[in-house]
Amino acid sequence: MAKKTTARKTTKKAAKKTTHKAAPRAAAPTKPAKKAPAKRSPKAGKMVYYFGATRTEGDASMKQIIGGKGANLAEMTAIGLPVPPGFTITTEACAAYYQAGKRLPHGLMNEVHTHTATLEKEAGKRFGDKNNPLLVSVRSGAAVSMPGMMDTILNLGLNDESVEGLAKATGNRRFAFDAYRRLLNMFGDVVLGVDHHHFELAFDDLKQRYNAKLDTDVPENGIVELCERYKDVIKAQSLQDFPQNPFKQLELAIEAVFKSWNADRAISYRRLSGISGLKGTAVNVQSMVFGNMGDDSGTGVAFTRDPSTGRNVFYGEFLINAQGEDVVAGIRTPEHVNSMPKWNKKVYDQLIKIKHKLEKHYREMEDIEFTIERGKLYMLQTRTGKRTGAAAVKIACDMVKERLITEKEALLRIPAGDLTQLLLPSFDPKAKTIATVLAKGLPASPGAAVGRPAFTADEAVNRARAGEKVILVRKETSPEDVDGMHSAVGILTSTGGMTSHAAVVARGWGKCCVAGAGEVAIDAKSGTFTVKGRTFGRQDMISLDGSTGEVIEGSLATVEPTLSGDFAKVMRWADKYRTLGVRTNADTPADAQRARDFGAQGIGLTRTEHMFFEGDRIRAMREMILAENREDREKALEKLLPHQREDFVGIFRAMKGLPVTVRLLDPPLHEFLPNDDKSQEEMAAVLRVPVAKIKARVAALHEANPMLGHRGCRLAVTYPEILKMQVRAIVEATIECAAERVKAMPEIMVPLVGTRAELAMLRQQIEDTIAEVKNEMDYKSRLDIKIGTMIEIPRAALTADEIAEVADFFSFGTNDLTQLTFGYSRDDINTFLPDYLQQDLLPNDPFQSLDVSGVGQLVEMGTQKGRAAKPDLKVGICGEHGGDPASVHFCHAVGMDYVSCSPFRVPIARLAAAQAAIRDGK
Amino acid sequence: MAKKTTARKTTKKAAKKTTHKAAPRAAAPTKPAKKAPAKRSPKAGKMVYYFGATRTEGDASMKQIIGGKGANLAEMTAIGLPVPPGFTITTEACAAYYQAGKRLPHGLMNEVHTHTATLEKEAGKRFGDKNNPLLVSVRSGAAVSMPGMMDTILNLGLNDESVEGLAKATGNRRFAFDAYRRLLNMFGDVVLGVDHHHFELAFDDLKQRYNAKLDTDVPENGIVELCERYKDVIKAQSLQDFPQNPFKQLELAIEAVFKSWNADRAISYRRLSGISGLKGTAVNVQSMVFGNMGDDSGTGVAFTRDPSTGRNVFYGEFLINAQGEDVVAGIRTPEHVNSMPKWNKKVYDQLIKIKHKLEKHYREMEDIEFTIERGKLYMLQTRTGKRTGAAAVKIACDMVKERLITEKEALLRIPAGDLTQLLLPSFDPKAKTIATVLAKGLPASPGAAVGRPAFTADEAVNRARAGEKVILVRKETSPEDVDGMHSAVGILTSTGGMTSHAAVVARGWGKCCVAGAGEVAIDAKSGTFTVKGRTFGRQDMISLDGSTGEVIEGSLATVEPTLSGDFAKVMRWADKYRTLGVRTNADTPADAQRARDFGAQGIGLTRTEHMFFEGDRIRAMREMILAENREDREKALEKLLPHQREDFVGIFRAMKGLPVTVRLLDPPLHEFLPNDDKSQEEMAAVLRVPVAKIKARVAALHEANPMLGHRGCRLAVTYPEILKMQVRAIVEATIECAAERVKAMPEIMVPLVGTRAELAMLRQQIEDTIAEVKNEMDYKSRLDIKIGTMIEIPRAALTADEIAEVADFFSFGTNDLTQLTFGYSRDDINTFLPDYLQQDLLPNDPFQSLDVSGVGQLVEMGTQKGRAAKPDLKVGICGEHGGDPASVHFCHAVGMDYVSCSPFRVPIARLAAAQAAIRDGK
Repeated sequence: MAKKTTARKTTKKAAKKTTHKAAPRAAAPTKPAKKAPAKRSPKAGKMVYYFGATRTEGDASMKQIIGGKGANLAEMTAIGLPVPPGFTITTEACAAYYQAGKRLPHGLMNEVHTHTATLEKEAGKRFGDKNNPLLVSVRSGAAVSMPGMMDTILNLGLNDESVEGLAKATGNRRFAFDAYRRLLNMFGDVVLGVDHHHFELAFDDLKQRYNAKLDTDVPENGIVELCERYKDVIKAQSLQDFPQNPFKQLELAIEAVFKSWNADRAISYRRLSGISGLKGTAVNVQSMVFGNMGDDSGTGVAFTRDPSTGRNVFYGEFLINAQGEDVVAGIRTPEHVNSMPKWNKKVYDQLIKIKHKLEKHYREMEDIEFTIERGKLYMLQTRTGKRTGAAAVKIACDMVKERLITEKEALLRIPAGDLTQLLLPSFDPKAKTIATVLAKGLPASPGAAVGRPAFTADEAVNRARAGEKVILVRKETSPEDVDGMHSAVGILTSTGGMTSHAAVVARGWGKCCVAGAGEVAIDAKSGTFTVKGRTFGRQDMISLDGSTGEVIEGSLATVEPTLSGDFAKVMRWADKYRTLGVRTNADTPADAQRARDFGAQGIGLTRTEHMFFEGDRIRAMREMILAENREDREKALEKLLPHQREDFVGIFRAMKGLPVTVRLLDPPLHEFLPNDDKSQEEMAAVLRVPVAKIKARVAALHEANPMLGHRGCRLAVTYPEILKMQVRAIVEATIECAAERVKAMPEIMVPLVGTRAELAMLRQQIEDTIAEVKNEMDYKSRLDIKIGTMIEIPRAALTADEIAEVADFFSFGTNDLTQLTFGYSRDDINTFLPDYLQQDLLPNDPFQSLDVSGVGQLVEMGTQKGRAAKPDLKVGICGEHGGDPASVHFCHAVGMDYVSCSPFRVPIARLAAAQAAIRDGK
Repeated sequence: MAKKTTARKTTKKAAKKTTHKAAPRAAAPTKPAKKAPAKRSPKAGKMVYYFGATRTEGDASMKQIIGGKGANLAEMTAIGLPVPPGFTITTEACAAYYQAGKRLPHGLMNEVHTHTATLEKEAGKRFGDKNNPLLVSVRSGAAVSMPGMMDTILNLGLNDESVEGLAKATGNRRFAFDAYRRLLNMFGDVVLGVDHHHFELAFDDLKQRYNAKLDTDVPENGIVELCERYKDVIKAQSLQDFPQNPFKQLELAIEAVFKSWNADRAISYRRLSGISGLKGTAVNVQSMVFGNMGDDSGTGVAFTRDPSTGRNVFYGEFLINAQGEDVVAGIRTPEHVNSMPKWNKKVYDQLIKIKHKLEKHYREMEDIEFTIERGKLYMLQTRTGKRTGAAAVKIACDMVKERLITEKEALLRIPAGDLTQLLLPSFDPKAKTIATVLAKGLPASPGAAVGRPAFTADEAVNRARAGEKVILVRKETSPEDVDGMHSAVGILTSTGGMTSHAAVVARGWGKCCVAGAGEVAIDAKSGTFTVKGRTFGRQDMISLDGSTGEVIEGSLATVEPTLSGDFAKVMRWADKYRTLGVRTNADTPADAQRARDFGAQGIGLTRTEHMFFEGDRIRAMREMILAENREDREKALEKLLPHQREDFVGIFRAMKGLPVTVRLLDPPLHEFLPNDDKSQEEMAAVLRVPVAKIKARVAALHEANPMLGHRGCRLAVTYPEILKMQVRAIVEATIECAAERVKAMPEIMVPLVGTRAELAMLRQQIEDTIAEVKNEMDYKSRLDIKIGTMIEIPRAALTADEIAEVADFFSFGTNDLTQLTFGYSRDDINTFLPDYLQQDLLPNDPFQSLDVSGVGQLVEMGTQKGRAAKPDLKVGICGEHGGDPASVHFCHAVGMDYVSCSPFRVPIARLAAAQAAIRDGK
């Protein structure tokens, strides 16, 4: 139970992860988070910072030294909020612990003793006292909050003597021993490594003997007995006694917190979240307050605004007569904070005041924890509240309206990547009217997920790796499950509330989650779940609606999102501050139009190969490939010309007045031929050629490494007639558009250039063709068609100065550039990438976020060399990194003119570009 | 006829090609040949240089300005040799001609007029004079001699009037008109573009009417008539009259020479020979002398030493009463110069004196042309004589002995690449005793070639491109055939002598050639040749012995070469001057021993994968690959361990005391599994597993781009047990060798590293394994095993500073580095490389000679960054470029410690390294 109950706290620490990710990491991904200017400068060698009425030594700016939790406890104390006093051991002490080969640094425990003495004085209680003992909680807390580390040990300071002291002081012996058994359980589990189920077995056995259903049904004697049993369990399992000396308890607990910094789960979380460069974790030692001292006591968690929608309403849950952990224990259903006035109006009003004070002070939406001990309110935690993308947008806009923050601050507050959540499709309401809703849980994290159930984290990871879309279906999730949650497209739990582990983590990642769908009975062993008498297995498709909490049978259709006015406002602000252009990668008029609606300032990449796969076209394309001489190739190409021209006309119309970069044919020709016998026979019948001819051509075109083969501009070198047809189509379309007063602005982009000679020769052929078509069509006006190249071959970046002489623009194709710079085939990387990430050999998938030190070096070199040779060279990027916020920051820093990304990522790129410019001081 | 007769001169110009190639090109491949310090500085704007008794304005140092031929004519004139006077138009004038859009530069013809006036004065004859006309020859001649350009127009200055003047002056009207018809033919063909066969038809027709068998049988009247007919041919074919004005003739001839600079054949020759950076061709205008003025006249060509063997004997051929062209016309067999004293002792003695003078003056083996006009000797040309590799070695050594040149000069004189000829196998004498010799021709260029006949140059190119070994079988070869000759492994002609086109070009390339095998009757149309009544076609294998001139039936066995004392001497000198180490790539004890015999100072690359293909090993290897868990993999690897250990013991013994760099397993695992059904079934039977399991594993291991897939150190990351087995084998072998007092010096090389993290982790595993094995074997002495990495991934070069921190050495794997830097798959490049070379998009195959500006940039960057991080980092190269002379020069310039190449290229690398050091001034 103790373990379960820690889950929520453990994971709520993930709250600031995304903020962190979008902020300093983007600018310099491998560097530690930038410190805010410190209000107080930390004292060299000082390892413990006090907070309380006596004095407060830390503040909110000192997260790097005393961790996020410690910094905020100090800050709240300083601004006069009711915080139980305590002290924080620094992250530097943790680093020193590891440097010394896992030994507590010299002098640390002396400092701890001194600060404990202050605490005793302030509380008027003594540590280990047999009359009125001081009890403390011990919690970890790094600069960036993260699950996976040891969380909390409560009631530390109790032993066989002081438990009687607590009984005296509180007049409640059952309460005192209940506190002691909780300590024994947590300490045994977390510090001494005794598996939790040993304690559970002992408790179950006891309950049976006392005929008790719930923990609370066990009488005082039973709890006293339970403490003895727990001490036996500890002795039997860990071969040591539970330490009776409170300072020994404290020392061991501090060391356990330090150790948990490098637990597998913590390392894994840091890797998944791209967190690096931190010193270690701080340790918070704080005097205990109790929410479980009777019906005038209670505990709760709340957000100062709604973290799902961003609406400015107080949002939270509380439980009467409970400790913090109980809120998510699932034993009792917590009440909404709205109902608190009925219970204690005074405390409620105080809480609302504190909420206002905190928002005003931090100028942020805060996530708080509080406890009421015998009618007195204590604040135990505040931190920046985690929120969905939609909430981030609304809160940022509202706070500007409320004059809490500036536009620039508002822009920096919205994690650019989280905009995806606003742009992703939701389920089609029409489809929903006829859908079978299997169950309804809590709308824990919005989104629309469709996939097949996986019942363990490992299963989810493995099946996702194999390319399957899976929904992780669990009774509840825990920090061990984060890998599986990350791999799944959606998460469904049968227990837990809006603030459960699954809900909090999923919201942080913008991943769809339905929590606490109690009707869903899960049998993980058999790999099924049953709902309303029907059983579903690994092969059954289900749909989750994270905005309604519905679990739906089958694969539901989705529709495009509609965007709020706040979204548009954020985009306007972004455009005001950014200096980097944003274009889109679009191959069809529909994509072009969508991207334009999303604010794209042009097309950075139109791939022409997709245009050859439909209907008649593939036939002509295949005729061209089978042709044995140039003449026959030209005949086939003539059939393709009108199609290609119409493709361009459509795109030019959609992008009227904006530049459209058209990339010439890129993939190897064998991609257009069928590989299997049956399709080859069909093709033979259609084209009226012998199958043998097709097979021979397929064999002739076979390549050992097609990625490094006959493709890109190499095709244009051997088959200039293909290039000519494409350029002709572009020019004819441009002139056709001009006739209907549509200003087309094509830019012709040559792919896979590795040498100046290639581009020089092909540029000449392009210019000749343009002149030829202009002449034929008797077009007299100027045609300003830029001719440039992809920089996607390392050699092109290395010799960019030479290539720039014959290029009007560069566009970095960072997909291929990453493949070649690393020697990684994107199609094959899955055989080893998981091992590389697992073993920390790579900080992340270099195809998702640009590898700054390797690939980035080539991008920077290519840009600088190119501009040195041609100062007005236009430089952009059209790899998928163009829509990755960290990579956008890099592109800004390198001085590119624009990034180009898929239509849905255009808003993300606009925001990321603005953030880069603001951070850059422009 | 005229065209044919120009062949020899055209192609003998190839003589200096190889010297050129090995010298300045190697240091900076794209730069023009370095000028020798000029004795005279060329005058700005001067376009014509005179040579003669009046004055001589050029000298041998001015090849860049007045071409090789012009420079040497001036030099010979200056040292008092009998050279007919004339003048040379500069290469700069040619460049100006192209810059002006193919117009003769302003003022050029004025200068030509002035110099012609000087020439007239000196000769006492006037241009176009009707009594005693001045006649001139016009010849092209660039700084580097090259076939493919327009060669010679003789007798220029003749017209309908001056032909009578020549008749009067010589008292021989038939001779005068014969000179005129030669001019008409050459001028019509070369300047006016009239196809040669029109003249041939006219001549044949005339001969028939005069009942003449040979040209010489036609009487004076007939020749006079022929001149009229030739003028008609010119008029009919070119639609213009033959220009009667001698200056018009000269102007058109000069322009024709300029144009020929960019003829396809000339461009193609420059490309094939790696010649670039020249300004253009010079034009030599020289007063005519006649070797065909009777039996006291004659003409010849000779080498000052034997160009095949290098022996110091006068070596050449001459013809009485003939013009230069007739020597190779095949009409009359030339006589050896040895027999000249019988004909004219005085001229012979004078020629021998001149030979000595030239060798002393040029300190080189010279290739000369001479003409005797009515008993008076004239020198028409001298240049460095082309020679075989063996001759180059012998001549260099002899000239050092004769104190003509220094050791350093001797080393620079031997084209490093030509050493291959000395190292290549020859036919096994035992095999020859039972071989069927089909025919015997001239031993025109030594070597042993085995292949199938190709009958046209195109056919040879195409079949060679498809991977076949072909022997080009031609009646004779011409400059149009150079591509085909280059593609063939050997050349066989049925006509032509030792100085024929085929012979000269083949010797220059070190390609086996048998010339003038008259018994061989070739039917190119049917694709057969007949000899001794037997007919051979495209499918019949034949062998050519270029050292004996034998044409042998079938495929003859070959034996290793034996090396001369001179070769050893050159190698000793090379070792004295070079600073770059030379290692070898060797995977077996036999290869290691051979390389050591050739002077390798260690092994730079031992590939371990080849070791797993034999007998039992492949079985264990396959068991390992099929294993489903680490334990089973380890079991299979245990079976491989003893084999691997013995491999290393063998190599360590062979290289006793020298370093041996062992590369860990590199290729993807699927290379060890069979792909076809039958082999898979066999494997299943042997391993006793279901075929389905093998098929499944093959499918699972399939990769879209294996070159960029799961290989190299990526295997060690996922299967650390493979690395451990290999390191264990190395360490056990080292300790085993130590027991038998063999000092093994292994260096462990990790392939395909792209990040510091990879190497850091694997280095730790390697060090741990070394320590483990040492401990197990209770070996107390120090084991100094270096651990380093290949630099073959662009990212590794870019981040070499990081990687160097965990590496003891770098070895540039320029094969893979070239693949990735260009994005070229070596296995697939043949689909487009020919087009790239054809269209001059690449100067050469980057897998043969290192691409300095792209790949070289990474090599230089990697070396500098690596050394900056670790100054004592050992740096070498183990790609195939390690044995390419130009690349060796680059490696020297970059400051590498060593190059490593295949055993047979070790001597080449040693010589190239010495040349680089000497040029570098060390």
